[in-house]
Amino acid sequence: MAILGELGTEILIPVCGVIGIVFAVAQWFIVSKVKVTPGAASAAAGAKNGYGDYLIEEEEGLNDHNVVVKCAEIQTAISEGATSFLFTMYQYVGMFMVVFAAIIFLFLGSIEGFSTKGQPCTYSKGTCKPALYTALFSTASFLLGAITSLVSGFLGMKIATYANARTTLEARKGVGKAFITAFRSGAVMGFLLSSSGLVVLYITINVFKMYYGDDWEGLFESITGYGLGGSSMALFGRVGGGIYTKAADVGADLVGKVERNIPEDDPRNPAVIADNVGDNVGDIAGMGSDLFGSYAESSCAALVVASISSFGINHDFTAMCYPLLVSSVGIIVCLLTTLFATDFFEIKAANEIEPALKKQLIISTALMTVGVAVISWLALPAKFTIFNFGAQKEVSNWGLFFCVAVGLWAGLIIGFVTEYYTSNAYSPVQDVTDSCRTGAATNVIFGLALGYKSVIIPIFAIAVSIYVSFSIAAMYGIAMAALGMLSTMATGLAIDAYGPISDNAGGIAEMAGMSHRIRERTDALDAAGNTTAAIGKGFAIGSAALVSLALFGAFVSRAGVKVVDVLSPKVFIGLIVGAMLPYWFSAMTMKSVGSAALKMVEEVRRQFNTIPGLMEGTAKPDYATCVKISTDASIKEMIPPGALVMLTPLIVGTLFGVETLSGVLAGALVSGVQIAISASNTGGAWDNAKKYIEAGNSEHARSLGPKGSDCHKAAVIGDTIGDPLKDTSGPSLNILIKLMAVESLVFAPFFATYGGLLFKYI
Amino acid sequence: MAILGELGTEILIPVCGVIGIVFAVAQWFIVSKVKVTPGAASAAAGAKNGYGDYLIEEEEGLNDHNVVVKCAEIQTAISEGATSFLFTMYQYVGMFMVVFAAIIFLFLGSIEGFSTKGQPCTYSKGTCKPALYTALFSTASFLLGAITSLVSGFLGMKIATYANARTTLEARKGVGKAFITAFRSGAVMGFLLSSSGLVVLYITINVFKMYYGDDWEGLFESITGYGLGGSSMALFGRVGGGIYTKAADVGADLVGKVERNIPEDDPRNPAVIADNVGDNVGDIAGMGSDLFGSYAESSCAALVVASISSFGINHDFTAMCYPLLVSSVGIIVCLLTTLFATDFFEIKAANEIEPALKKQLIISTALMTVGVAVISWLALPAKFTIFNFGAQKEVSNWGLFFCVAVGLWAGLIIGFVTEYYTSNAYSPVQDVTDSCRTGAATNVIFGLALGYKSVIIPIFAIAVSIYVSFSIAAMYGIAMAALGMLSTMATGLAIDAYGPISDNAGGIAEMAGMSHRIRERTDALDAAGNTTAAIGKGFAIGSAALVSLALFGAFVSRAGVKVVDVLSPKVFIGLIVGAMLPYWFSAMTMKSVGSAALKMVEEVRRQFNTIPGLMEGTAKPDYATCVKISTDASIKEMIPPGALVMLTPLIVGTLFGVETLSGVLAGALVSGVQIAISASNTGGAWDNAKKYIEAGNSEHARSLGPKGSDCHKAAVIGDTIGDPLKDTSGPSLNILIKLMAVESLVFAPFFATYGGLLFKYI
Repeated sequence: MAILGELGTEILIPVCGVIGIVFAVAQWFIVSKVKVTPGAASAAAGAKNGYGDYLIEEEEGLNDHNVVVKCAEIQTAISEGATSFLFTMYQYVGMFMVVFAAIIFLFLGSIEGFSTKGQPCTYSKGTCKPALYTALFSTASFLLGAITSLVSGFLGMKIATYANARTTLEARKGVGKAFITAFRSGAVMGFLLSSSGLVVLYITINVFKMYYGDDWEGLFESITGYGLGGSSMALFGRVGGGIYTKAADVGADLVGKVERNIPEDDPRNPAVIADNVGDNVGDIAGMGSDLFGSYAESSCAALVVASISSFGINHDFTAMCYPLLVSSVGIIVCLLTTLFATDFFEIKAANEIEPALKKQLIISTALMTVGVAVISWLALPAKFTIFNFGAQKEVSNWGLFFCVAVGLWAGLIIGFVTEYYTSNAYSPVQDVTDSCRTGAATNVIFGLALGYKSVIIPIFAIAVSIYVSFSIAAMYGIAMAALGMLSTMATGLAIDAYGPISDNAGGIAEMAGMSHRIRERTDALDAAGNTTAAIGKGFAIGSAALVSLALFGAFVSRAGVKVVDVLSPKVFIGLIVGAMLPYWFSAMTMKSVGSAALKMVEEVRRQFNTIPGLMEGTAKPDYATCVKISTDASIKEMIPPGALVMLTPLIVGTLFGVETLSGVLAGALVSGVQIAISASNTGGAWDNAKKYIEAGNSEHARSLGPKGSDCHKAAVIGDTIGDPLKDTSGPSLNILIKLMAVESLVFAPFFATYGGLLFKYI
Repeated sequence: MAILGELGTEILIPVCGVIGIVFAVAQWFIVSKVKVTPGAASAAAGAKNGYGDYLIEEEEGLNDHNVVVKCAEIQTAISEGATSFLFTMYQYVGMFMVVFAAIIFLFLGSIEGFSTKGQPCTYSKGTCKPALYTALFSTASFLLGAITSLVSGFLGMKIATYANARTTLEARKGVGKAFITAFRSGAVMGFLLSSSGLVVLYITINVFKMYYGDDWEGLFESITGYGLGGSSMALFGRVGGGIYTKAADVGADLVGKVERNIPEDDPRNPAVIADNVGDNVGDIAGMGSDLFGSYAESSCAALVVASISSFGINHDFTAMCYPLLVSSVGIIVCLLTTLFATDFFEIKAANEIEPALKKQLIISTALMTVGVAVISWLALPAKFTIFNFGAQKEVSNWGLFFCVAVGLWAGLIIGFVTEYYTSNAYSPVQDVTDSCRTGAATNVIFGLALGYKSVIIPIFAIAVSIYVSFSIAAMYGIAMAALGMLSTMATGLAIDAYGPISDNAGGIAEMAGMSHRIRERTDALDAAGNTTAAIGKGFAIGSAALVSLALFGAFVSRAGVKVVDVLSPKVFIGLIVGAMLPYWFSAMTMKSVGSAALKMVEEVRRQFNTIPGLMEGTAKPDYATCVKISTDASIKEMIPPGALVMLTPLIVGTLFGVETLSGVLAGALVSGVQIAISASNTGGAWDNAKKYIEAGNSEHARSLGPKGSDCHKAAVIGDTIGDPLKDTSGPSLNILIKLMAVESLVFAPFFATYGGLLFKYI
């Protein structure tokens, strides 16, 4: 048995989770000290708390209360827009949840004909609980996962819209202060999400255990619903949010920047509030749900494989909880890492921001490696067996440490490769920028080529992780490698969320009419955020690949498939059709963004043409109509791609059976991961190519600029094309591959019993 | 035994081949009657032979000998440019051939340590020839395949450059005459290529049989080199030719159309000759080699599987030759089909061209279905067995007919879906055109989405063909489905080649300063050619998918692999890395086109800036330098992607072994086919969207135009981006997936013996 006893485990996990939540709340409290409305205390004492603060060097005329009031107004508008969108979405998503919960219950309950009698277990000895109750518990955990995901996304959005104006106001005191405010707010989201995910999962396991008792197989099978719930909400968050944000962004840019020649985030642009709302619902709430889904899924995949391995058969609770323990350690490690950014060091100049963020990734990875080693030594027996498609495979605790570590470091490599291909500090983006000299067409050709090329190293990193972890501990190894990549999720999410917060802060500065100095500072924050956002996406995709492979393995184990032979026609047609699905899905999402953007363009043009005084700044645009267009479009357009993802496993499994479904999952995985990486990086590169010309920080950059030159116009076209690639279709593909796998896993017993109707009758 | 005896087979195949060659020569002779230089006969008799012909309605001043002389001059320039490029390429390719022939000989010869003693056969009883001699014969068939491919491509280019000016001259008499000239010339290429491919393969088999005698296993194993030779030449033809043509095209357009506002093919543009040369080396010679490669490979895949099935074991020569018999029937069917276009019906108006070409596809498919049924009944025994990964599977002759027919009709479906997505007569392209209203960015977003969407139905068609043919006759069924799709290749190639010939004809009309009437007629020919070119590409990709699956099956059989299990880490890492290769390859080819185009742009700009009187038309541009830039760039740039394709199977097979290699092949196949289809169709759609605005044939089209409007400019950008997608990277991917498979097949015995070094030592 392991060194850490069962009691120790029962204490350690919730304590770590609670520490994470407390830390998040503390960060929120610190951010809240920056006041955007006059409070009693601040008004009385005139304390250094934001509201009463002024920048000494601030130009005359701008240095008054009105600016602060304006910031507060804009913040409220953004927050209300985001809240209203999310609530509208939740209505539709709620209906989906109810319907899908019913499907889960009926499909899984029907396996033993809704019998309430216990059945012999599949893997361990003794009697297991009837399928009907497992169906009930699966449904419950599905709903729990879904609700946790929604709450996480919502809270993330709340803190982000709470922090954006505060970041703007802090920017008056200097870039360092603004950075810390934005980063702390990101950390709130990162820690809330990773801790609550852990705590809810932990409580659920303990509650379910009261019913299941010794039937660990049934217990952890029903827990997989948690992953499905988390991930299906992420689908709608990513797709709906992605369409929302890019319809607004593309629409605003096409008319504002290109036709009217007004700057980004100009308050005269009617779509500007919708654009800022979009950052919060797409990049914050969507990304949060996505990573929460990955986390829940890889935990579930690991748990379900462990339950039919010696951990489950020998009822070794501590070892069973190893995936949760790794995540618990991750929270503590990320907490320490965060202090490096907020307390141990101080940012003094704009060029220190990006290194500080990159240091976060390196520090958390290094510390986590130590943490994983310790917990592997404490929580795992020296030798144990792992289920490997029908056989048991012997593994040592150091082997498992190696699996987690290889995932962790592969994540870092993917992150840095992504940075290399999307940051304008390196030659790939600079080459793309150069190609703007001959116009938009060459810019697009070079950008697409860059995205394709950027796939190479991440795929090798993923392949090596798969080979190593698979060889050591079969599918359990893959699941642990995925969890390793996600173990520093709190830090990763903090960095991710930091980006859109800074982006919004810049928007607010522009809209509130603050001075150029302030805008320069928020731009510096935003530029660093752009690169880290690309890193975050690379990371999300890499982990999604591992997660879905782990889920695939768990599905295959659950469905009783021993071999998935490419040489069988059933599997091969699944493989080729599966490889096609990401294209189908991308076609839908990209066209949705395009159509919604066209509607937005028409509305923005209409307002510019019909509202007198709008261009002169004497009349106010009608922001609400643009917000409504984005909301309606995204709600309507998220249904077809959502249906494609949710229905494919059900239809394929029922009509063609588990073999073809295995092919579909493998095909979608190997094809989707490539498109996702290349789409994200192409988009990121175009964005930064444009920023490179705009910033004009080098001789080379100035030779291409300035803003408004032909080169710059070509770069803007590239940036606009990249928007749906990097923020809608690319990141949604993560969810496509994960969700189909987890759904297959949940329905595996049903497919194994009733699947393949079509082949049976032909 | 079958109804058709061995003697009948020995007569039927060469007779059909010779008929095809004779037919091709006859068409060439008819085309040659149009004179571009004053011949003795025509000068004396003033016969209606082109040179002395004038159009009655031709405007004054243009109706003179000078136009004809000018056409002849331009034709000569294009022909010389193309010939010189091909000869330059052949020097490099020749070196490659020698080196690779040595590799084949050494690798395959080493299997039994260069022993000259016979070995027991793997599948049939008795002694088989030593590996050393099979290595020798494989090398010989590799060289034969390579040379046949080069000669086919070269002859195709010759007839195309022979026909282009003749088509221009015939356009003076009417659109129908011009159409027939272009189509006949295309038919020359189609029939020459398909017939010579058949005849050479047939002779090779008969010659090799003298040595091999009863060892059919060794005989057909050595024949696979023929496919490898054909396909490796196609790689260089497609990639080199593709880079050549698009560097010139993009370069010419970016300066000519966009910057200088002069029409396409304007003689003042220095890159115009290079552009026209490119059509011939890329779309004619490259496409010819590509389809020849597919044909040779699917024949070899079918033969190698048949040799270890009952056909080979029972030494049933007629049944063994079934693949060749199907191709023989195809030649006769295509011959009849061609008469429908050239003799039975006459084109009177421009809008009859596209239906006439589409009718060719339908007629040939319908006739071929009957032809296949007849030959299946004549040549096959009623029942026989087919090798199915270690077992023998019983098949009936009607089952095999079904395999061929399903491939044939799937090809037609893919062709028509491609047409739907790329012709501007339907809504998909019209939607893309509409999106040009908001600029280039939305045009690109909609175009990419269209390409992604266009993948869906072809993939389902391929999946159904695979399932049906695989279920009926395992990998032999797949190979026969591929051959079915290719059986009407002569007609397909005639239609394909017709496109660039018409394109060139239009260019010559423009450069020779012919009247607008003539240009309108050649434009009508060209527009129809654009759509059919897209159909041809869809067709090439569909058949490539089936061919490479068949080769993959043959490889697996030869390498003695019984199962390719996705759940094995060795296979899975192969799968995901294989799925990445098409991206890597596309990144290389697209960037090559981009860089070469940039060089071309600089040169064209330089000439416009430094040659006085160029824009006014009083001075001549320096065409030769542009031709040289394209030549040098394409030769240099084709090496890295070529190396990627040629080395991957060797490295993976040697270091990681046959299992990982199987994964790589399957991954590259399922991922590559999607990118290839979407890239081709996106490019085709953009091209026709631009043409739709330019033609202005409807109220809707006129609302977007005219030429030079913002909408049109956005459409031109899309067209330029599409050029490398549809003419370089897309079609080259066909070859990537086929070539890696056939190379693996040829080296299978080596990998099976020595492969997987890395895993052995870890």
